[in-house]
Amino acid sequence: MSEKYRIDDLQTGGRMLKQNKELFCFGIDAVLLANYAANFVQKEHKVMDLGCGNGIIPVLLSAKCAAGQIDGVELNKESAMLAKENIALNRLQHRLNIFCGDLRDYAEPWQKTRYNVVVSNPPYIKCADGKINNKVSLAAAKHELTCTLADVLLCAQRLLKAGGSFIMIHRTQRLAEIIEKMKQNHVEPKELLLVYPKAGKKSNLFLIRGIKGAKEWINVLPPLFIYDEQGQYTDEFKAFCRQNNES
Amino acid sequence: MSEKYRIDDLQTGGRMLKQNKELFCFGIDAVLLANYAANFVQKEHKVMDLGCGNGIIPVLLSAKCAAGQIDGVELNKESAMLAKENIALNRLQHRLNIFCGDLRDYAEPWQKTRYNVVVSNPPYIKCADGKINNKVSLAAAKHELTCTLADVLLCAQRLLKAGGSFIMIHRTQRLAEIIEKMKQNHVEPKELLLVYPKAGKKSNLFLIRGIKGAKEWINVLPPLFIYDEQGQYTDEFKAFCRQNNES
Repeated sequence: MSEKYRIDDLQTGGRMLKQNKELFCFGIDAVLLANYAANFVQKEHKVMDLGCGNGIIPVLLSAKCAAGQIDGVELNKESAMLAKENIALNRLQHRLNIFCGDLRDYAEPWQKTRYNVVVSNPPYIKCADGKINNKVSLAAAKHELTCTLADVLLCAQRLLKAGGSFIMIHRTQRLAEIIEKMKQNHVEPKELLLVYPKAGKKSNLFLIRGIKGAKEWINVLPPLFIYDEQGQYTDEFKAFCRQNNES
Repeated sequence: MSEKYRIDDLQTGGRMLKQNKELFCFGIDAVLLANYAANFVQKEHKVMDLGCGNGIIPVLLSAKCAAGQIDGVELNKESAMLAKENIALNRLQHRLNIFCGDLRDYAEPWQKTRYNVVVSNPPYIKCADGKINNKVSLAAAKHELTCTLADVLLCAQRLLKAGGSFIMIHRTQRLAEIIEKMKQNHVEPKELLLVYPKAGKKSNLFLIRGIKGAKEWINVLPPLFIYDEQGQYTDEFKAFCRQNNES
């Protein structure tokens, strides 16, 4: 293996992940999303990850829930290939499928499936904001070059069964916009978990769960702080990451 | 004074408040709203409280900010009368005005004023939800009998100057609905403060500040916990209530 790649032990059910150091490598967002989403996945469920990158969310989820079918779609060919490699590396071909395709193209065959749970860790930054990365693939993972929030929500609501859950992580500064777009797509926000880097700081990330076709009414969970005053992971964050682990 | 009334020392700049025990008496929400709103009021500002009840918010605000004009509108005649009495009781006639009127009636003369800051502690409960109180005035204060969230937001956006702040407290379960309605009325949610009864519990109240005509982008402040493990007010809540006090 060239120096272009690295393999990380995910410390979760023995899962490993091969990453291309030149593409988007997973961060704490993926860990937060997989751990949170696992609470809402049951054995008989079908799960879809929109914009799955190198497959980090499907691979982590497979260790955190019993779902028999976890799919992912990724536009970038190199990332989708890596996701397929990661599925083989973890011997998960019987449960996980990766499609290389465009979530905006409703003619793709996987768009016919209806899912119980759709998750996404989409690009965070609008194209008008921030300096766009020169590397096209890295830019697409961070900026809304190839899919906007509206694209993700439109695809999610199409793919979801009635009563199914859409679960996303995003930057807190876009919370109001995301709540509005979820409601416009009839994916009613039902639960919100605000993530704070530490006590006394503004929230930088949030996890949200919407239910397709549900009534208005949202629960806001106790806040989740990542670091304590000493810069160490808080006990609550460590517990959050341990939940749903295979015994 | 009959036993129908009570007078409370507001522990804020010597302010007192006469309340009718048979009408809506103020709670922690009013204290939270007045303290939060005061951060955004400057000396030259005009402030309006939509649905001011017995005048608790204008009276508290007058001790927390230097605004020369703080108005309130209240539909219930008995409450509006009490609000006027409270203004006299605190000798605030030069700064505070109460209008007995309907915020849905745009022909009322006070609807011609344009305000820098509009605040509201509106009825929390939709008419379809919960048992409606037999006493009409108490029911109107708790249920959306005489004004809905949409009425409040429509009136707020009409009354606000461009760039002016709308500041509200409400039940957290209605957060998503409120964010959507603010955006529909071009009052962009810019700051959110979630209030939690104590650590480890779901949020029950929130304070939100929207700015008329602003761009999308919201800050979520550090959470505010009211009680500690011993059931005492937290230091942060006590500090929150002391902020902006007259020295």
